Amino acid sequence: MNDDALGLLLKFLRFPSISAQSAHAGDLRHCAGWLGTLLQSCGLHAEVHPTAGHPIVVARTPPDPAKRTILFYGHYDVQPPDPLELWETPPFEPAVRDGRIYARGASDNKGQILAHILGVRDTLAETGTTPVNVIFLIEGEEEVGSENLAPFLLAHRDELACDVICISDNGMVADFHPTLSYAMRGIAALEGVVRGPAVDLHSGVYGGAVMNPATAAARLVASLHDADGRVLIPGFYDDVQPLADWERAAAAANPITDADLLAQTGAPALFGEAGYSAVERIGARPTAEVNGLGGGYQGEGSKTVLPAQAFFKLTFRLVPAMDPAKILAAAEAHLRAHCPPGVTLELTPGHAGAPYFSDPTSPDGLAAQRALERVFGAPAALYREGGSIPILTAFREILGASALLPALASPDCAAHSPNENFPLGNFEAGIALNRALLEEFARVPPDFHGYRGDVPDFTRAARTA
Amino acid sequence: MNDDALGLLLKFLRFPSISAQSAHAGDLRHCAGWLGTLLQSCGLHAEVHPTAGHPIVVARTPPDPAKRTILFYGHYDVQPPDPLELWETPPFEPAVRDGRIYARGASDNKGQILAHILGVRDTLAETGTTPVNVIFLIEGEEEVGSENLAPFLLAHRDELACDVICISDNGMVADFHPTLSYAMRGIAALEGVVRGPAVDLHSGVYGGAVMNPATAAARLVASLHDADGRVLIPGFYDDVQPLADWERAAAAANPITDADLLAQTGAPALFGEAGYSAVERIGARPTAEVNGLGGGYQGEGSKTVLPAQAFFKLTFRLVPAMDPAKILAAAEAHLRAHCPPGVTLELTPGHAGAPYFSDPTSPDGLAAQRALERVFGAPAALYREGGSIPILTAFREILGASALLPALASPDCAAHSPNENFPLGNFEAGIALNRALLEEFARVPPDFHGYRGDVPDFTRAARTA
Repeated sequence: MNDDALGLLLKFLRFPSISAQSAHAGDLRHCAGWLGTLLQSCGLHAEVHPTAGHPIVVARTPPDPAKRTILFYGHYDVQPPDPLELWETPPFEPAVRDGRIYARGASDNKGQILAHILGVRDTLAETGTTPVNVIFLIEGEEEVGSENLAPFLLAHRDELACDVICISDNGMVADFHPTLSYAMRGIAALEGVVRGPAVDLHSGVYGGAVMNPATAAARLVASLHDADGRVLIPGFYDDVQPLADWERAAAAANPITDADLLAQTGAPALFGEAGYSAVERIGARPTAEVNGLGGGYQGEGSKTVLPAQAFFKLTFRLVPAMDPAKILAAAEAHLRAHCPPGVTLELTPGHAGAPYFSDPTSPDGLAAQRALERVFGAPAALYREGGSIPILTAFREILGASALLPALASPDCAAHSPNENFPLGNFEAGIALNRALLEEFARVPPDFHGYRGDVPDFTRAARTA
Repeated sequence: MNDDALGLLLKFLRFPSISAQSAHAGDLRHCAGWLGTLLQSCGLHAEVHPTAGHPIVVARTPPDPAKRTILFYGHYDVQPPDPLELWETPPFEPAVRDGRIYARGASDNKGQILAHILGVRDTLAETGTTPVNVIFLIEGEEEVGSENLAPFLLAHRDELACDVICISDNGMVADFHPTLSYAMRGIAALEGVVRGPAVDLHSGVYGGAVMNPATAAARLVASLHDADGRVLIPGFYDDVQPLADWERAAAAANPITDADLLAQTGAPALFGEAGYSAVERIGARPTAEVNGLGGGYQGEGSKTVLPAQAFFKLTFRLVPAMDPAKILAAAEAHLRAHCPPGVTLELTPGHAGAPYFSDPTSPDGLAAQRALERVFGAPAALYREGGSIPILTAFREILGASALLPALASPDCAAHSPNENFPLGNFEAGIALNRALLEEFARVPPDFHGYRGDVPDFTRAARTA
């Protein structure tokens, strides 16, 4: 890495591009403009597109129809830096300490996306061209839900057509351990409200003669799992694909230990479904989780009410090939069947997103694995993440391309937290990785453009239409 | 009832004697002073005793050692009148409509205690004496926990010595239906906090690998009952005394119908322990009730957290001869045994009070029944109330006397609510009832002074010491 690369990262990090705060709209505009100028100066054709929210920056190498096309996605917006008092140095005055650069956005996502930009710049500077067509798509609303991204993809579907998408917006499984994330869990939200008496009752004067809605809510939440943590909703596991041998081997080889998870969570012990490791339980197994539960008196001390109502907020995390709508229907049927008498149950489905899987053993997946091994000198950990990234589904459904997620952030990057940081070694490796990725993606047969696996047929049809 | 009685009630109700609001401390002082003067004018010797809180008024007829002694307890403080906008006429400007007087405190407790005062006044005016010694004990802190009452009882134990206590601070089972409440449930509170991760976790990134404290709390609450509402804590029912035939007959004869309870609660259906009527479930059967339950996200919409902790607030309502300490110990053991792995459980016992039972077939109980039948022209409903009145236990333990509770308020008196009211017919009947009570209590053999039933031996010993 040369001094210029670090200088550009420092400049990028000085923009307080906080998408959640409208007072910073100007900072986001300036940051997007700076990014467009940078991409242009690297030898790409760049455009800054206004949206109903913050601008989207698109840049591309001159399209060569004989080459495959890779789209790098990233975002220039950042999380709010609060609480400010916990930062050792100010969040928008980047500072280098012990080989790491500290600033809001250092790893999420400015450092990671800039590494890819500078990798392409280096390739162009050295060879005058790139072995594949490159598109950068860098948005400013990732931290606030990417509301304007899918409409933009729809409106620019042809210009953004690509064979594979590459995103580095994630963390390695261990310090400087090459990591290819290839799956995300889907999600389906369901809220329940249990209603009993018209008003909170005196629990002495009426207790015993009416069903307590908080008891009913507790019984419903308790009905979701057996004592071993397995979900009891009939049909819940019906569509779960068994883990292939290579996936179980990859999970076993994952350097994340139970001790790591205990340290990260602070839980007194790990707990989960029998027959699976903690890494598998997080990435490869579905869950039914209560995110919020409430009813009756919430204050200090005691108040002897029999509450009029109680609620529970559930999310299910889904793995291929579970269907959110099918799971919500099964959960509703289960909850209605378990609802005690004497209360009514209102169920409201919330947001939902399909599980995501991008085969790391596909030609593109193998290319990404080779690139990671070339740069880091070790085979990549193949990682299924537990969270959900709804935009991956938007990319697949609108652009008809799968995303591979080689990580550049360190596991202790403190994304979204005070003292967010990015090791300079990772930044440098990221620049090298981009060059290796372009070369390896170029080795994939040009007629392979896409994905295999859990993709709805209509998407393939739309893409080839 | 003469105009003077109504005039006194109007005056009494005009004092805004709201014990919860310190701005009204002067009003409580004035009200207590007015009450002392009234009692003095009725021919009793009255004293207004300052306390650390609001004054306590004590008045008595000249003690005759040959006569039995009856203590009437009541309170002159009232609940706050909010929400004011729901009152048809201002809460401290009493108004008579359709034979009822509307004002805060009309039935709770000014109207009921004044009826007893005026009953004694009439007896004294007519006969120059009373057939039993009478003591009035009227406090100003009933609505805020009677904090200074027990210390006062201890300090004035000899002066307040009595054979039976009579309290009208309750409602009839039906309109103008003579009612003798003879039991109250005890209470034992227990709060549980379930702790898991050190902080709220991302439910995608970690869900499946750690126990969810809200799930654990729900499982613990759900473990308390079977599907039919019976409490599953081992030993919970061990000390519950089976209902005597006369008690089951009294419950069956109670005019409170299931339709009444549905209308009062607004619940979609009644629910409770098999083998008992709703009236029995409320008054004669113990419960385990969750008064508050909470964990995780409480706001609108969805937040995908796996909460760091969750809580539940329980109260158990107890019937003779359950021991609060024993029930709390059994509940703790049950909850600890059912606590899922991967979380810790902190249990904190709260307030507790013993169940109360004052045999309505004792000589004093029969005397009260006779008085009620004389005035109302029908046999009294014998009623076990579901709530708890801790001061009854204080009276029993300190003064060594049982309380009988003939009701004067109507079932729709709106105590603690807007438009609280007291039918003038009930006021008039209350004055007559007091006269009948004095006569009937005088017919009980003079050596019967106390109670039989569930009374700890140490109390008897203390009383006879």
